[in-house]
Amino acid sequence: MRIVRFSPGPDSGLGTDPLFGVLEDDNQITVISGDPIYHGVTKTGAKVELSSVRLLAPVIPRSKVVCVGKNYAEHAKEMGGRAPAEPIIFIKPNTTVIGPGDTIVWPSIAPTIDYEAELAIVIGRLCKDVPRERVKDVIFGYTVANDVTCREIQKSDGQWTRAKSFDTFCPIGPWIETDFIPGTQRIYSKVNEEARQNGTLSDMIFSVEDIVVFISQAMTLLPGDIIITGTPAGIGPMSERGTVTVGVEGIGELTNKVSAKP
Amino acid sequence: MRIVRFSPGPDSGLGTDPLFGVLEDDNQITVISGDPIYHGVTKTGAKVELSSVRLLAPVIPRSKVVCVGKNYAEHAKEMGGRAPAEPIIFIKPNTTVIGPGDTIVWPSIAPTIDYEAELAIVIGRLCKDVPRERVKDVIFGYTVANDVTCREIQKSDGQWTRAKSFDTFCPIGPWIETDFIPGTQRIYSKVNEEARQNGTLSDMIFSVEDIVVFISQAMTLLPGDIIITGTPAGIGPMSERGTVTVGVEGIGELTNKVSAKP
Repeated sequence: MRIVRFSPGPDSGLGTDPLFGVLEDDNQITVISGDPIYHGVTKTGAKVELSSVRLLAPVIPRSKVVCVGKNYAEHAKEMGGRAPAEPIIFIKPNTTVIGPGDTIVWPSIAPTIDYEAELAIVIGRLCKDVPRERVKDVIFGYTVANDVTCREIQKSDGQWTRAKSFDTFCPIGPWIETDFIPGTQRIYSKVNEEARQNGTLSDMIFSVEDIVVFISQAMTLLPGDIIITGTPAGIGPMSERGTVTVGVEGIGELTNKVSAKP
Repeated sequence: MRIVRFSPGPDSGLGTDPLFGVLEDDNQITVISGDPIYHGVTKTGAKVELSSVRLLAPVIPRSKVVCVGKNYAEHAKEMGGRAPAEPIIFIKPNTTVIGPGDTIVWPSIAPTIDYEAELAIVIGRLCKDVPRERVKDVIFGYTVANDVTCREIQKSDGQWTRAKSFDTFCPIGPWIETDFIPGTQRIYSKVNEEARQNGTLSDMIFSVEDIVVFISQAMTLLPGDIIITGTPAGIGPMSERGTVTVGVEGIGELTNKVSAKP
């Protein structure tokens, strides 16, 4: 099931507040009442065309976006390091989250800004110390994220947080796929429609199960929290006034605009 | 003005929900309606004795606790590095926050856990790119924080986030002092009532103004967000089943219990 969050169009008769819905086929959204992470999926009966609405980030984490670094061996190599023995964790604040079609804003202090295509886990339940066999029970679904990064600041700071925490640096979407099972699906990115990263999820060093077990050993995860699971090799810069697309086969594609460089 | 958040006692007649109040003298709380960060300070007329209530963390950040590392030269030296040229930033998730008297829970994977006394800034307004002369306008007040850290994990991970993000690793309190102006006040810590850190806020490398300007250049700050401003020299381990106190002269003292080591 594909869960979207959207602003209904002015002629929809559905009001102006953001709504959640189920994408029934390529162009039909059935509206659901409330936030499905908290209230389940109860259809109101109202329907609207996908093409008539503006999609929003499918979830706004009320606590955190937890991120895993260097989780693909070829990417660890291109970053000049080796594959880590345990997941490397950092946090992007929820103020970084934007949705499909939104503009990534180039910070005035950033010489370049890089894309990083990532599989994003959407947590569905409050949980801590999740045992491996229960990981699937705490996951609401999956979406796609772009872990936007200023590489120069990442290197000069040493700590990665600031380079990855500028406003607009965490596009997510286009929707949450609740039936997705990570396997050998392609994960990829494009800049101005030209191919960049092209990996497969099976190249992740630490699996979704490994990651949820590891992170929940440290911190309580809340419904709506997001975990982004690392990026494959092929990172590089975006171009000003261009577009960037990140995608995971079986979930969907997320495209954002990039602002002018200040 | 000292703003407290508290659970009224069962015999208070004030219900069971957490309330905010103004600490009028050493033992008298005047209840205020709503959250003063959003609704201002409107006294309801009800009064309650401080000694009859349970104090809570004076604010729960809905977005983030932003932290500054190595912000006292002597501490940077004891960590084996030099003073940084720019603030080093990391984030503790809001799931780390606990209040006065609460128990810091020793993670099973942590050989030792350290105290770090810090001055905490409580943000009062949504803001971005704050100019130096407006920093005072976006600060609601100050409180005291303990940036609890597993030093072994901090060193082995390289990235500091996980070592500082375990549940209960960010005690804050005992209240928010809205009239505090950082200067030469003492900042200190005690373990089981024995003195440990003993510094002064004037030893901070980057001032409160420097820090708010720098962080807000990257990320939007929300009302209730917290910035903790680094710790002076003298860090060290807490002891299981002990107590830890962190204090800033002119604000107050925050004491927490430490659990048994699992």
